[in-house]
Amino acid sequence: MPIIESIPNVSEGRRPEVVAAIAAAIRAVPGVRLLDHSSDGSHNRSVFTMAGDAASIKAAVLAMYEQALAAIDLRTHTGEHPRLGAVDVVPFVPIEGVTMEECVALAKEVGSEVASRFGIPVYLYEEASANPSRKNLEDIRRGEFEGLAAKMGTTLWAPDFGPATPHPSAGASVIGARMPLIAYNINLNTDRLDVAKKIAAAIRHSSGGFRYVKAAGFELKERGIVQVSMNLTNYEKTPIFRVFETVKREAERYGVTILESEIVGLVPSAALNAAAEYYLRLGAFSPDQVLENKLRV
Amino acid sequence: MPIIESIPNVSEGRRPEVVAAIAAAIRAVPGVRLLDHSSDGSHNRSVFTMAGDAASIKAAVLAMYEQALAAIDLRTHTGEHPRLGAVDVVPFVPIEGVTMEECVALAKEVGSEVASRFGIPVYLYEEASANPSRKNLEDIRRGEFEGLAAKMGTTLWAPDFGPATPHPSAGASVIGARMPLIAYNINLNTDRLDVAKKIAAAIRHSSGGFRYVKAAGFELKERGIVQVSMNLTNYEKTPIFRVFETVKREAERYGVTILESEIVGLVPSAALNAAAEYYLRLGAFSPDQVLENKLRV
Repeated sequence: MPIIESIPNVSEGRRPEVVAAIAAAIRAVPGVRLLDHSSDGSHNRSVFTMAGDAASIKAAVLAMYEQALAAIDLRTHTGEHPRLGAVDVVPFVPIEGVTMEECVALAKEVGSEVASRFGIPVYLYEEASANPSRKNLEDIRRGEFEGLAAKMGTTLWAPDFGPATPHPSAGASVIGARMPLIAYNINLNTDRLDVAKKIAAAIRHSSGGFRYVKAAGFELKERGIVQVSMNLTNYEKTPIFRVFETVKREAERYGVTILESEIVGLVPSAALNAAAEYYLRLGAFSPDQVLENKLRV
Repeated sequence: MPIIESIPNVSEGRRPEVVAAIAAAIRAVPGVRLLDHSSDGSHNRSVFTMAGDAASIKAAVLAMYEQALAAIDLRTHTGEHPRLGAVDVVPFVPIEGVTMEECVALAKEVGSEVASRFGIPVYLYEEASANPSRKNLEDIRRGEFEGLAAKMGTTLWAPDFGPATPHPSAGASVIGARMPLIAYNINLNTDRLDVAKKIAAAIRHSSGGFRYVKAAGFELKERGIVQVSMNLTNYEKTPIFRVFETVKREAERYGVTILESEIVGLVPSAALNAAAEYYLRLGAFSPDQVLENKLRV
């Protein structure tokens, strides 16, 4: 049974009854599990994490839209977090037994349905967008809801689905497909912040490093050490072990060693298995060999 | 939901209708999955692999006994593989959300029930046995069914449960708890069989190596290389990465490198995660962080 994860971001974080109604609508869809949801009052925004197969996830996202659109009006919405829509962002993430292509197809299907059923303009992003200037969420969201009508007036920002003007109360939605994020930190056996910053610069994409790494150097003052803090945005193409080994080698250059690394939050088992395969030089390994996978077929 | 695996070995591998009846009896128990079963005619023996929670697995094993005892008479049974009973060996293996202690308790509970319900003497083995001379299956089975009456005449071989004499047609059963086995091979970049044999001797328990490693050196003639072939009998106490690193270091002594390693058959995900944790120096890692585990809670 294929598993797709979706993590919609909704522009409501202050009215618990609205958040509860959205959560209830998601839970009511058979085949979908609402794994988590959290709200931030100052952001005035909530994040829902759900999992299921394509058809169930689609039904749950549409049910979520119905609740959100009935309750949220961006014309009176305030909050610290940038937002373009009442339902602001809807990513689909391949977890198991499903390809990125299938998640892209699902994003387009849901985008088309959201546009036709609710009259909301939809921008595809990340893997679902074929347009290089429309892959990055921050680029699409720049100007926010308040600047949306002007932005949509330019041909550059014609939506992928739906009307050429914003929905009056719901703005626009950004829908797409991406790999799971891994939040990964490496702690160095030194208090030299310059070393952490130089290593971060060496490995992150923006300054010439690996394609799917975002990185920054930080001090952990209470421990007297420094940290290279990272987001790995595609663990298949830029695997954890390659990042670890590169940081280790760069640190050696400064006479510094790796104290430990840490994964913050969740990690797909395939990302850990890839590290075991690499270091153990496993010649021919298949996920079917993992006992738990066999038990759950 | 806790998962225990059981892999009973039954002394019947030639009559498909008997094997099918046993398989059907296991499948009929709710909460149990029969993952695999295979029969060997020359051994005249079948192996059933099932998984479920403690109560379901117990019910399935007892249902299996009923079918096997009705159909098998060891007085007329022949086969190459040594055997002591119609149901010869029943191991319980902790897979997920269950401790070894719970599997030991289950082995004793099933052993007691088999003895009282069917009048079969039961020997506990491996982790379920408190007696060091009764842990090893081969020691218990020595003399086989044909020598069992004489063996049981000595106080040394009084059973853990049930009568002091063999069951006329079903002999005795060996029931216990053990860790999952991992079949693990390391291929060396050389054709020198002596190197593979020396490394196997260095790492296996019987000649001074790691406590939970069985190993032998083999030639892979068609590839012109040699292999250290191993069984890892407790991956928690003798982990894969430590075996790999020790073989690598021993090989260096002879100017030889590791070409690749391979896991044959199934491996618990915890054994792979331990390798990732070790090499990536993960400071604080919990199985709860594996996304799939969270999805399946």
